[in-house]
Amino acid sequence: MNHIKIVLIGSGRVGFHLGNKLHEVGFNVIQVFSRQKKKAKELAQLIDSKPINNLSKISKEGDLYILAISDNAISKVSKTLSKLIKKNALIVHTSGATPISVFEKHFKRFGILYPLQTFSFEKKPDFSKIPICIDSQKKKDLNFLKKLALKISPNVHHLSDLQRSKLHVSAVFVNNFVNHLYFIGKKILDEENISLNILKPLIIETSEKILENDPINMQTGPAIRKDTETIKSHLVHLEKNPELQEIYQIITQSIQKYHS
Amino acid sequence: MNHIKIVLIGSGRVGFHLGNKLHEVGFNVIQVFSRQKKKAKELAQLIDSKPINNLSKISKEGDLYILAISDNAISKVSKTLSKLIKKNALIVHTSGATPISVFEKHFKRFGILYPLQTFSFEKKPDFSKIPICIDSQKKKDLNFLKKLALKISPNVHHLSDLQRSKLHVSAVFVNNFVNHLYFIGKKILDEENISLNILKPLIIETSEKILENDPINMQTGPAIRKDTETIKSHLVHLEKNPELQEIYQIITQSIQKYHS
Repeated sequence: MNHIKIVLIGSGRVGFHLGNKLHEVGFNVIQVFSRQKKKAKELAQLIDSKPINNLSKISKEGDLYILAISDNAISKVSKTLSKLIKKNALIVHTSGATPISVFEKHFKRFGILYPLQTFSFEKKPDFSKIPICIDSQKKKDLNFLKKLALKISPNVHHLSDLQRSKLHVSAVFVNNFVNHLYFIGKKILDEENISLNILKPLIIETSEKILENDPINMQTGPAIRKDTETIKSHLVHLEKNPELQEIYQIITQSIQKYHS
Repeated sequence: MNHIKIVLIGSGRVGFHLGNKLHEVGFNVIQVFSRQKKKAKELAQLIDSKPINNLSKISKEGDLYILAISDNAISKVSKTLSKLIKKNALIVHTSGATPISVFEKHFKRFGILYPLQTFSFEKKPDFSKIPICIDSQKKKDLNFLKKLALKISPNVHHLSDLQRSKLHVSAVFVNNFVNHLYFIGKKILDEENISLNILKPLIIETSEKILENDPINMQTGPAIRKDTETIKSHLVHLEKNPELQEIYQIITQSIQKYHS
Protein backbone atom coordinates (compact mmCIF):
# COMPACT_ATOMS: atom_id res chain seq x y z
CA MET A 1 0.00 0.00 0.00
CA ASN A 2 3.06 2.27 0.17
CA HIS A 3 2.41 3.54 -3.36
CA ILE A 4 -0.69 5.50 -2.29
CA LYS A 5 -0.48 9.26 -2.60
CA ILE A 6 -1.04 11.17 0.60
CA VAL A 7 -1.84 14.87 0.89
CA LEU A 8 -1.16 16.31 4.34
CA ILE A 9 -3.15 19.38 5.35
CA GLY A 10 -1.60 21.04 8.38
CA SER A 11 1.96 21.28 9.66
CA GLY A 12 1.34 21.84 13.35
CA ARG A 13 2.65 19.42 15.97
CA VAL A 14 0.45 16.51 14.85
CA GLY A 15 0.93 17.14 11.11
CA PHE A 16 4.66 17.58 11.54
CA HIS A 17 5.28 14.33 13.40
CA LEU A 18 2.70 12.29 11.46
CA GLY A 19 4.15 13.53 8.17
CA ASN A 20 7.66 12.61 9.24
CA LYS A 21 6.57 9.16 10.37
CA LEU A 22 4.60 8.44 7.18
CA HIS A 23 7.67 9.40 5.15
CA GLU A 24 9.94 7.34 7.39
CA VAL A 25 7.94 4.15 6.83
CA GLY A 26 7.94 4.72 3.08
CA PHE A 27 4.70 6.51 2.26
CA ASN A 28 4.57 9.07 -0.50
CA VAL A 29 3.34 12.38 0.90
CA ILE A 30 2.90 14.29 -2.35
CA GLN A 31 1.87 17.63 -0.84
CA VAL A 32 1.99 19.51 2.45
CA PHE A 33 -0.38 22.41 3.05
CA SER A 34 0.12 25.09 5.68
CA ARG A 35 -1.26 28.63 5.70
CA GLN A 36 2.26 29.64 6.69
CA LYS A 37 4.46 29.24 3.63
CA LYS A 38 7.60 28.79 5.72
CA LYS A 39 6.17 25.95 7.79
CA ALA A 40 4.85 24.13 4.72
CA LYS A 41 8.27 24.45 3.10
CA GLU A 42 10.18 23.25 6.15
CA LEU A 43 8.09 20.13 6.57
CA ALA A 44 7.96 19.41 2.81
CA GLN A 45 11.76 19.50 2.65
CA LEU A 46 12.07 17.03 5.49
CA ILE A 47 9.72 14.51 3.95
CA ASP A 48 10.53 14.92 0.29
CA SER A 49 7.18 16.55 -0.48
CA LYS A 50 5.86 19.72 -2.12
CA PRO A 51 4.66 22.68 -0.07
CA ILE A 52 1.56 24.73 -0.77
CA ASN A 53 0.06 27.55 1.25
CA ASN A 54 -3.13 27.98 -0.72
CA LEU A 55 -5.78 25.26 -0.80
CA SER A 56 -6.67 26.18 -4.38
CA LYS A 57 -3.36 24.55 -5.40
CA ILE A 58 -4.24 21.25 -3.80
CA SER A 59 -3.46 18.14 -5.83
CA LYS A 60 -6.37 16.19 -7.28
CA GLU A 61 -4.14 13.09 -7.42
CA GLY A 62 -4.32 12.22 -3.75
CA ASP A 63 -5.70 8.86 -2.58
CA LEU A 64 -5.76 9.97 1.05
CA TYR A 65 -6.15 13.49 2.44
CA ILE A 66 -5.18 13.89 6.09
CA LEU A 67 -6.50 16.93 7.95
CA ALA A 68 -4.16 17.66 10.86
CA ILE A 69 -5.68 21.03 11.68
CA SER A 70 -7.47 22.59 14.62
CA ASP A 71 -10.92 21.25 15.48
CA ASN A 72 -12.77 24.41 14.61
CA ALA A 73 -11.23 24.50 11.10
CA ILE A 74 -12.13 20.93 10.09
CA SER A 75 -15.66 21.66 8.91
CA LYS A 76 -14.75 24.71 6.87
CA VAL A 77 -11.65 23.19 5.27
CA SER A 78 -13.47 19.99 4.32
CA LYS A 79 -16.20 22.04 2.67
CA THR A 80 -13.57 23.93 0.69
CA LEU A 81 -11.75 20.70 -0.23
CA SER A 82 -14.96 19.04 -1.42
CA LYS A 83 -15.05 21.53 -4.29
CA LEU A 84 -11.39 20.97 -5.18
CA ILE A 85 -10.63 17.25 -4.97
CA LYS A 86 -12.10 14.04 -6.36
CA LYS A 87 -15.36 12.95 -4.74
CA ASN A 88 -14.05 9.40 -4.25
CA ALA A 89 -10.85 10.34 -2.43
CA LEU A 90 -10.59 9.22 1.18
CA ILE A 91 -10.41 12.05 3.70
CA VAL A 92 -9.60 11.71 7.42
CA HIS A 93 -8.98 13.99 10.34
CA THR A 94 -6.68 13.49 13.32
CA SER A 95 -8.86 14.94 16.05
CA GLY A 96 -10.15 13.33 19.21
CA ALA A 97 -12.96 15.80 19.67
CA THR A 98 -14.56 16.20 16.23
CA PRO A 99 -17.21 13.66 15.15
CA ILE A 100 -16.78 11.72 11.94
CA SER A 101 -20.07 13.23 10.69
CA VAL A 102 -18.24 16.48 9.98
CA PHE A 103 -17.41 14.97 6.57
CA GLU A 104 -20.85 13.54 5.75
CA LYS A 105 -22.20 16.41 3.70
CA HIS A 106 -19.08 16.80 1.61
CA PHE A 107 -17.55 13.36 0.99
CA LYS A 108 -18.46 9.74 0.33
CA ARG A 109 -15.34 8.17 1.84
CA PHE A 110 -14.11 9.54 5.12
CA GLY A 111 -12.69 8.48 8.45
CA ILE A 112 -10.55 9.11 11.50
CA LEU A 113 -6.83 8.68 12.11
CA TYR A 114 -6.31 9.98 15.64
CA PRO A 115 -2.88 9.49 17.24
CA LEU A 116 -3.41 9.66 21.00
CA GLN A 117 -0.34 11.49 22.23
CA THR A 118 0.86 14.92 23.27
CA PHE A 119 3.31 16.10 20.64
CA SER A 120 5.95 18.81 20.92
CA PHE A 121 8.27 20.11 18.25
CA GLU A 122 11.17 19.69 20.67
CA LYS A 123 10.92 15.92 20.91
CA LYS A 124 10.67 13.15 18.33
CA PRO A 125 7.80 10.90 19.37
CA ASP A 126 8.17 7.13 19.56
CA PHE A 127 5.25 6.08 17.38
CA SER A 128 5.63 2.44 18.40
CA LYS A 129 4.12 3.46 21.73
CA ILE A 130 1.39 5.71 20.37
CA PRO A 131 -2.16 4.34 20.17
CA ILE A 132 -3.77 5.19 16.82
CA CYS A 133 -7.56 5.38 16.91
CA ILE A 134 -9.29 4.78 13.60
CA ASP A 135 -12.85 4.85 12.36
CA SER A 136 -14.78 4.80 9.10
CA GLN A 137 -18.32 3.94 8.08
CA LYS A 138 -17.16 1.79 5.18
CA LYS A 139 -15.54 -1.52 5.98
CA LYS A 140 -13.11 -1.24 3.08
CA ASP A 141 -11.91 2.19 4.20
CA LEU A 142 -11.67 1.02 7.80
CA ASN A 143 -9.48 -1.89 6.70
CA PHE A 144 -7.35 0.46 4.66
CA LEU A 145 -6.89 2.84 7.60
CA LYS A 146 -6.08 -0.10 9.85
CA LYS A 147 -3.35 -1.30 7.50
CA LEU A 148 -1.94 2.19 7.21
CA ALA A 149 -2.06 2.79 10.98
CA LEU A 150 -0.32 -0.53 11.65
CA LYS A 151 2.60 0.67 9.54
CA ILE A 152 3.20 3.47 12.03
CA SER A 153 2.23 1.79 15.31
CA PRO A 154 1.34 -1.72 16.51
CA ASN A 155 -1.20 -0.10 18.85
CA VAL A 156 -4.29 0.46 16.66
CA HIS A 157 -7.86 0.72 17.96
CA HIS A 158 -11.19 0.98 16.18
CA LEU A 159 -13.29 3.35 18.27
CA SER A 160 -16.74 4.81 17.65
CA ASP A 161 -17.36 8.56 17.77
CA LEU A 162 -18.68 8.31 21.32
CA GLN A 163 -15.74 6.19 22.47
CA ARG A 164 -13.24 8.49 20.84
CA SER A 165 -14.73 11.61 22.35
CA LYS A 166 -14.92 10.02 25.81
CA LEU A 167 -11.29 9.00 25.35
CA HIS A 168 -10.50 12.59 24.51
CA VAL A 169 -12.20 13.88 27.68
CA SER A 170 -10.24 11.30 29.64
CA ALA A 171 -7.00 12.37 27.95
CA VAL A 172 -7.69 15.96 28.98
CA PHE A 173 -7.76 14.84 32.63
CA VAL A 174 -4.65 12.63 32.54
CA ASN A 175 -2.59 14.88 30.27
CA ASN A 176 -3.68 18.54 30.13
CA PHE A 177 -4.93 18.72 33.70
CA VAL A 178 -2.07 16.64 35.11
CA ASN A 179 0.42 18.95 33.41
CA HIS A 180 -1.35 21.92 34.98
CA LEU A 181 -0.99 20.27 38.40
CA TYR A 182 2.76 19.98 37.69
CA PHE A 183 2.70 23.69 36.90
CA ILE A 184 0.92 24.41 40.21
CA GLY A 185 3.39 22.21 42.08
CA LYS A 186 6.26 24.20 40.58
CA LYS A 187 4.55 27.50 41.37
CA ILE A 188 4.23 26.57 45.05
CA LEU A 189 7.92 25.57 45.21
CA ASP A 190 9.03 28.72 43.38
CA GLU A 191 7.73 30.78 46.31
CA GLU A 192 10.29 29.09 48.56
CA ASN A 193 13.07 28.94 45.97
CA ILE A 194 12.94 25.17 45.76
CA SER A 195 13.62 23.54 42.39
CA LEU A 196 10.98 21.28 40.83
CA ASN A 197 13.83 18.75 40.45
CA ILE A 198 13.21 17.60 44.00
CA LEU A 199 9.71 16.44 42.99
CA LYS A 200 10.66 14.72 39.75
CA PRO A 201 11.30 11.26 41.23
CA LEU A 202 7.85 11.44 42.86
CA ILE A 203 6.22 12.58 39.61
CA ILE A 204 7.77 9.70 37.64
CA GLU A 205 6.94 7.13 40.32
CA THR A 206 3.33 8.35 40.42
CA SER A 207 2.87 7.76 36.70
CA GLU A 208 4.82 4.48 36.58
CA LYS A 209 2.81 3.02 39.44
CA ILE A 210 -0.38 2.93 37.43
CA LEU A 211 1.29 0.86 34.68
CA GLU A 212 0.82 -2.16 36.92
CA ASN A 213 -1.81 -0.99 39.39
CA ASP A 214 -5.34 0.39 39.39
CA PRO A 215 -5.15 4.10 40.37
CA ILE A 216 -7.87 3.58 42.98
CA ASN A 217 -5.50 1.35 44.96
CA MET A 218 -2.57 3.76 44.64
CA GLN A 219 -4.27 6.75 46.29
CA THR A 220 -2.38 8.12 49.30
CA GLY A 221 -2.22 11.46 51.11
CA PRO A 222 -4.19 13.60 53.55
CA ALA A 223 -7.48 13.49 51.60
CA ILE A 224 -7.88 9.70 51.64
CA ARG A 225 -6.61 9.54 55.26
CA LYS A 226 -9.18 12.22 56.16
CA ASP A 227 -6.33 14.03 57.89
CA THR A 228 -8.21 17.29 58.46
CA GLU A 229 -5.35 18.95 60.37
CA THR A 230 -2.94 18.59 57.43
CA ILE A 231 -5.62 19.63 54.94
CA LYS A 232 -6.32 22.77 56.99
CA SER A 233 -2.63 23.67 57.18
CA HIS A 234 -2.26 23.14 53.42
CA LEU A 235 -5.17 25.50 52.76
CA VAL A 236 -3.45 28.10 54.95
CA HIS A 237 -0.30 27.73 52.83
CA LEU A 238 -2.40 28.44 49.73
CA GLU A 239 -4.08 31.53 51.19
CA LYS A 240 -2.44 33.86 48.68
CA ASN A 241 -3.92 31.83 45.79
CA PRO A 242 -7.67 31.43 46.27
CA GLU A 243 -8.05 29.49 43.01
CA LEU A 244 -5.42 26.98 44.11
CA GLN A 245 -7.30 26.62 47.40
CA GLU A 246 -10.44 25.92 45.39
CA ILE A 247 -8.69 23.27 43.27
CA TYR A 248 -7.24 21.75 46.46
CA GLN A 249 -10.64 21.58 48.13
CA ILE A 250 -12.59 20.27 45.20
CA ILE A 251 -10.13 17.45 44.40
CA THR A 252 -9.87 16.58 48.10
CA GLN A 253 -13.67 16.30 48.27
CA SER A 254 -13.71 14.17 45.14
CA ILE A 255 -11.05 11.80 46.56
CA GLN A 256 -13.06 11.49 49.78
CA LYS A 257 -16.27 10.86 47.84
CA TYR A 258 -14.81 7.92 45.90
CA HIS A 259 -12.99 6.47 48.90
CA SER A 260 -15.71 6.67 51.51
CA MET B 1 28.54 5.69 62.01
CA ASN B 2 27.05 2.28 61.22
CA HIS B 3 27.46 1.20 64.84
CA ILE B 4 24.72 3.55 66.05
CA LYS B 5 21.62 1.93 67.52
CA ILE B 6 18.39 2.84 65.80
CA VAL B 7 14.88 2.34 67.18
CA LEU B 8 12.16 2.40 64.54
CA ILE B 9 8.67 3.40 65.67
CA GLY B 10 6.08 2.48 63.04
CA SER B 11 5.91 -0.27 60.44
CA GLY B 12 3.60 1.33 57.89
CA ARG B 13 4.74 1.93 54.32
CA VAL B 14 7.41 4.49 55.25
CA GLY B 15 8.67 2.59 58.31
CA PHE B 16 8.73 -0.68 56.39
CA HIS B 17 10.81 0.57 53.47
CA LEU B 18 13.04 2.87 55.53
CA GLY B 19 13.74 0.05 58.01
CA ASN B 20 14.64 -2.32 55.20
CA LYS B 21 16.92 0.23 53.59
CA LEU B 22 18.70 1.13 56.85
CA HIS B 23 19.32 -2.57 57.45
CA GLU B 24 20.48 -3.07 53.87
CA VAL B 25 23.18 -0.40 54.16
CA GLY B 26 24.41 -1.86 57.43
CA PHE B 27 22.67 0.06 60.19
CA ASN B 28 21.68 -1.68 63.39
CA VAL B 29 17.94 -1.30 63.94
CA ILE B 30 17.71 -2.69 67.46
CA GLN B 31 13.93 -2.46 67.86
CA VAL B 32 10.79 -2.11 65.75
CA PHE B 33 7.57 -0.87 67.32
CA SER B 34 4.12 -1.35 65.86
CA ARG B 35 0.79 -1.39 67.69
CA GLN B 36 0.06 -4.50 65.61
CA LYS B 37 2.21 -7.31 67.00
CA LYS B 38 2.17 -9.17 63.68
CA LYS B 39 3.45 -6.22 61.65
CA ALA B 40 6.22 -5.48 64.16
CA LYS B 41 7.27 -9.12 64.03
CA GLU B 42 7.25 -9.34 60.25
CA LEU B 43 9.41 -6.26 59.79
CA ALA B 44 11.74 -7.15 62.67
CA GLN B 45 12.40 -10.56 61.12
CA LEU B 46 13.29 -9.01 57.78
CA ILE B 47 15.80 -6.58 59.26
CA ASP B 48 17.26 -8.68 62.04
CA SER B 49 15.63 -6.59 64.75
CA LYS B 50 13.40 -7.11 67.81
CA PRO B 51 9.66 -6.42 67.68
CA ILE B 52 7.67 -4.66 70.40
CA ASN B 53 4.02 -3.67 70.37
CA ASN B 54 4.00 -1.73 73.61
CA LEU B 55 5.95 1.51 73.95
CA SER B 56 6.65 0.76 77.62
CA LYS B 57 9.10 -1.89 76.39
CA ILE B 58 11.09 0.58 74.33
CA SER B 59 14.86 0.31 74.56
CA LYS B 60 16.73 3.06 76.42
CA GLU B 61 19.88 2.15 74.45
CA GLY B 62 18.90 3.85 71.21
CA ASP B 63 21.06 6.63 69.72
CA LEU B 64 18.40 7.53 67.17
CA TYR B 65 14.61 7.11 67.41
CA ILE B 66 12.76 7.36 64.11
CA LEU B 67 9.02 8.07 64.23
CA ALA B 68 7.45 6.75 61.02
CA ILE B 69 3.88 7.18 62.20
CA SER B 70 0.84 9.17 61.13
CA ASP B 71 1.01 12.94 61.55
CA ASN B 72 -1.66 13.15 64.18
CA ALA B 73 0.14 10.60 66.39
CA ILE B 74 3.58 12.29 66.42
CA SER B 75 2.86 14.72 69.25
CA LYS B 76 1.31 12.15 71.57
CA VAL B 77 3.91 9.45 70.93
CA SER B 78 6.83 11.83 71.43
CA LYS B 79 5.35 12.94 74.76
CA THR B 80 5.07 9.30 75.84
CA LEU B 81 8.60 8.54 74.64
CA SER B 82 10.04 11.51 76.51
CA LYS B 83 9.22 9.76 79.77
CA LEU B 84 10.74 6.46 78.65
CA ILE B 85 14.00 7.17 76.84
CA LYS B 86 17.19 9.12 77.55
CA LYS B 87 16.84 12.88 77.33
CA ASN B 88 19.92 13.18 75.12
CA ALA B 89 18.79 10.67 72.47
CA LEU B 90 18.15 12.07 69.00
CA ILE B 91 14.55 11.77 67.82
CA VAL B 92 13.28 12.45 64.30
CA HIS B 93 10.05 12.08 62.38
CA THR B 94 9.52 11.26 58.71
CA SER B 95 6.61 13.58 57.98
CA GLY B 96 6.33 16.34 55.42
CA ALA B 97 3.47 18.09 57.16
CA THR B 98 4.44 18.17 60.87
CA PRO B 99 6.69 21.01 62.08
CA ILE B 100 9.94 20.24 63.86
CA SER B 101 8.62 22.14 66.90
CA VAL B 102 6.43 19.15 67.77
CA PHE B 103 9.48 17.83 69.67
CA GLU B 104 10.52 21.04 71.43
CA LYS B 105 8.73 20.52 74.72
CA HIS B 106 9.91 16.95 75.14
CA PHE B 107 13.43 16.62 73.77
CA LYS B 108 16.73 18.45 73.48
CA ARG B 109 17.93 16.82 70.28
CA PHE B 110 15.45 16.37 67.47
CA GLY B 111 15.08 16.63 63.73
CA ILE B 112 13.49 15.57 60.47
CA LEU B 113 14.23 12.68 58.12
CA TYR B 114 11.56 12.97 55.43
CA PRO B 115 11.83 10.70 52.38
CA LEU B 116 9.87 12.38 49.60
CA GLN B 117 8.23 9.48 47.81
CA THR B 118 4.97 7.57 47.60
CA PHE B 119 5.58 4.12 49.04
CA SER B 120 3.54 0.96 48.53
CA PHE B 121 4.05 -2.44 50.10
CA GLU B 122 3.79 -3.99 46.64
CA LYS B 123 6.91 -2.36 45.25
CA LYS B 124 10.48 -2.05 46.53
CA PRO B 125 11.46 1.60 46.22
CA ASP B 126 14.73 2.68 44.61
CA PHE B 127 16.14 4.86 47.38
CA SER B 128 18.91 6.15 45.13
CA LYS B 129 16.22 8.24 43.44
CA ILE B 130 14.41 9.37 46.58
CA PRO B 131 15.09 12.87 47.89
CA ILE B 132 15.62 12.84 51.66
CA CYS B 133 14.75 16.12 53.39
CA ILE B 134 16.50 16.70 56.69
CA ASP B 135 16.40 19.38 59.36
CA SER B 136 17.62 19.98 62.89
CA GLN B 137 18.22 23.03 65.05
CA LYS B 138 21.64 21.77 66.16
CA LYS B 139 24.43 21.79 63.65
CA LYS B 140 25.94 18.60 65.00
CA ASP B 141 22.65 16.73 64.70
CA LEU B 142 22.05 18.15 61.25
CA ASN B 143 25.47 16.90 60.13
CA PHE B 144 24.74 13.52 61.64
CA LEU B 145 21.38 13.28 59.83
CA LYS B 146 23.04 14.37 56.61
CA LYS B 147 25.65 11.60 56.88
CA LEU B 148 22.98 9.04 57.67
CA ALA B 149 20.69 10.22 54.84
CA LEU B 150 23.58 10.09 52.37
CA LYS B 151 24.01 6.40 53.17
CA ILE B 152 20.52 5.75 51.83
CA SER B 153 20.31 8.30 48.99
CA PRO B 154 22.65 10.73 47.20
CA ASN B 155 19.72 13.16 47.00
CA VAL B 156 19.73 14.92 50.41
CA HIS B 157 18.27 18.38 51.06
CA HIS B 158 18.31 20.59 54.14
CA LEU B 159 14.92 22.29 54.21
CA SER B 160 13.33 24.56 56.80
CA ASP B 161 9.91 23.82 58.28
CA LEU B 162 8.25 26.27 55.88
CA GLN B 163 10.09 24.85 52.87
CA ARG B 164 9.26 21.30 53.85
CA SER B 165 5.57 22.02 54.37
CA LYS B 166 5.33 23.91 51.07
CA LEU B 167 7.08 20.96 49.44
CA HIS B 168 4.47 18.72 50.99
CA VAL B 169 1.58 20.82 49.61
CA SER B 170 3.26 20.69 46.22
CA ALA B 171 3.67 16.91 46.49
CA VAL B 172 -0.06 16.60 47.20
CA PHE B 173 -0.77 18.31 43.87
CA VAL B 174 1.74 16.34 41.75
CA ASN B 175 1.17 12.98 43.42
CA ASN B 176 -2.15 12.59 45.30
CA PHE B 177 -4.16 14.84 43.00
CA VAL B 178 -2.50 13.57 39.82
CA ASN B 179 -3.31 9.99 40.85
CA HIS B 180 -6.92 11.03 41.40
CA LEU B 181 -6.99 12.47 37.87
CA TYR B 182 -5.76 9.06 36.62
CA PHE B 183 -8.66 7.54 38.57
CA ILE B 184 -11.10 9.97 36.93
CA GLY B 185 -9.63 9.23 33.49
CA LYS B 186 -10.18 5.53 34.10
CA LYS B 187 -13.72 6.12 35.37
CA ILE B 188 -14.65 7.98 32.17
CA LEU B 189 -13.22 5.17 30.00
CA ASP B 190 -14.94 2.48 32.07
CA GLU B 191 -18.29 3.89 30.97
CA GLU B 192 -17.41 3.02 27.36
CA ASN B 193 -15.61 -0.25 28.16
CA ILE B 194 -12.26 1.14 27.10
CA SER B 195 -9.17 -0.02 29.00
CA LEU B 196 -6.94 2.52 30.71
CA ASN B 197 -4.07 0.80 28.86
CA ILE B 198 -4.80 2.96 25.84
CA LEU B 199 -3.94 6.08 27.88
CA LYS B 200 -0.78 4.74 29.52
CA PRO B 201 1.67 5.92 26.82
CA LEU B 202 0.17 9.42 27.14
CA ILE B 203 0.39 9.32 30.94
CA ILE B 204 4.06 8.30 30.86
CA GLU B 205 4.93 10.85 28.17
CA THR B 206 3.20 13.61 30.16
CA SER B 207 5.35 12.93 33.22
CA GLU B 208 8.59 12.35 31.31
CA LYS B 209 8.22 15.60 29.38
CA ILE B 210 8.66 17.71 32.48
CA LEU B 211 12.02 16.05 33.25
CA GLU B 212 13.54 18.29 30.60
CA ASN B 213 10.93 21.02 30.16
CA ASP B 214 9.11 23.59 32.26
CA PRO B 215 5.47 22.46 32.64
CA ILE B 216 4.26 25.90 31.57
CA ASN B 217 5.70 25.29 28.09
CA MET B 218 4.25 21.79 27.84
CA GLN B 219 0.60 22.80 28.28
CA THR B 220 -1.66 21.69 25.42
CA GLY B 221 -5.37 21.00 25.00
CA PRO B 222 -8.70 22.79 24.63
CA ALA B 223 -8.27 25.03 27.71
CA ILE B 224 -5.04 26.72 26.56
CA ARG B 225 -6.36 26.91 22.96
CA LYS B 226 -9.54 28.52 24.33
CA ASP B 227 -11.42 25.98 22.21
CA THR B 228 -14.86 26.68 23.71
CA GLU B 229 -16.68 24.25 21.42
CA THR B 230 -14.62 21.28 22.59
CA ILE B 231 -14.84 22.41 26.22
CA LYS B 232 -18.63 22.61 25.94
CA SER B 233 -18.88 19.14 24.38
CA HIS B 234 -16.62 17.72 27.11
CA LEU B 235 -18.88 19.19 29.79
CA VAL B 236 -21.86 17.54 28.10
CA HIS B 237 -20.02 14.19 28.26
CA LEU B 238 -19.57 14.70 32.01
CA GLU B 239 -23.22 15.57 32.64
CA LYS B 240 -23.83 12.48 34.75
CA ASN B 241 -20.99 13.48 37.10
CA PRO B 242 -21.49 17.06 38.28
CA GLU B 243 -18.36 16.96 40.48
CA LEU B 244 -16.23 15.92 37.50
CA GLN B 245 -17.76 18.82 35.55
CA GLU B 246 -16.76 21.11 38.41
CA ILE B 247 -13.17 19.79 38.43
CA TYR B 248 -13.06 20.16 34.63
CA GLN B 249 -14.28 23.76 34.76
CA ILE B 250 -12.11 24.91 37.63
CA ILE B 251 -8.86 23.49 36.18
CA THR B 252 -9.77 24.83 32.73
CA GLN B 253 -10.26 28.29 34.24
CA SER B 254 -6.96 28.02 36.10
CA ILE B 255 -5.09 27.01 32.91
CA GLN B 256 -6.64 29.97 31.09
CA LYS B 257 -5.75 32.32 33.95
CA TYR B 258 -2.06 31.42 33.86
CA HIS B 259 -1.85 31.37 30.08
CA SER B 260 -3.67 34.58 29.24
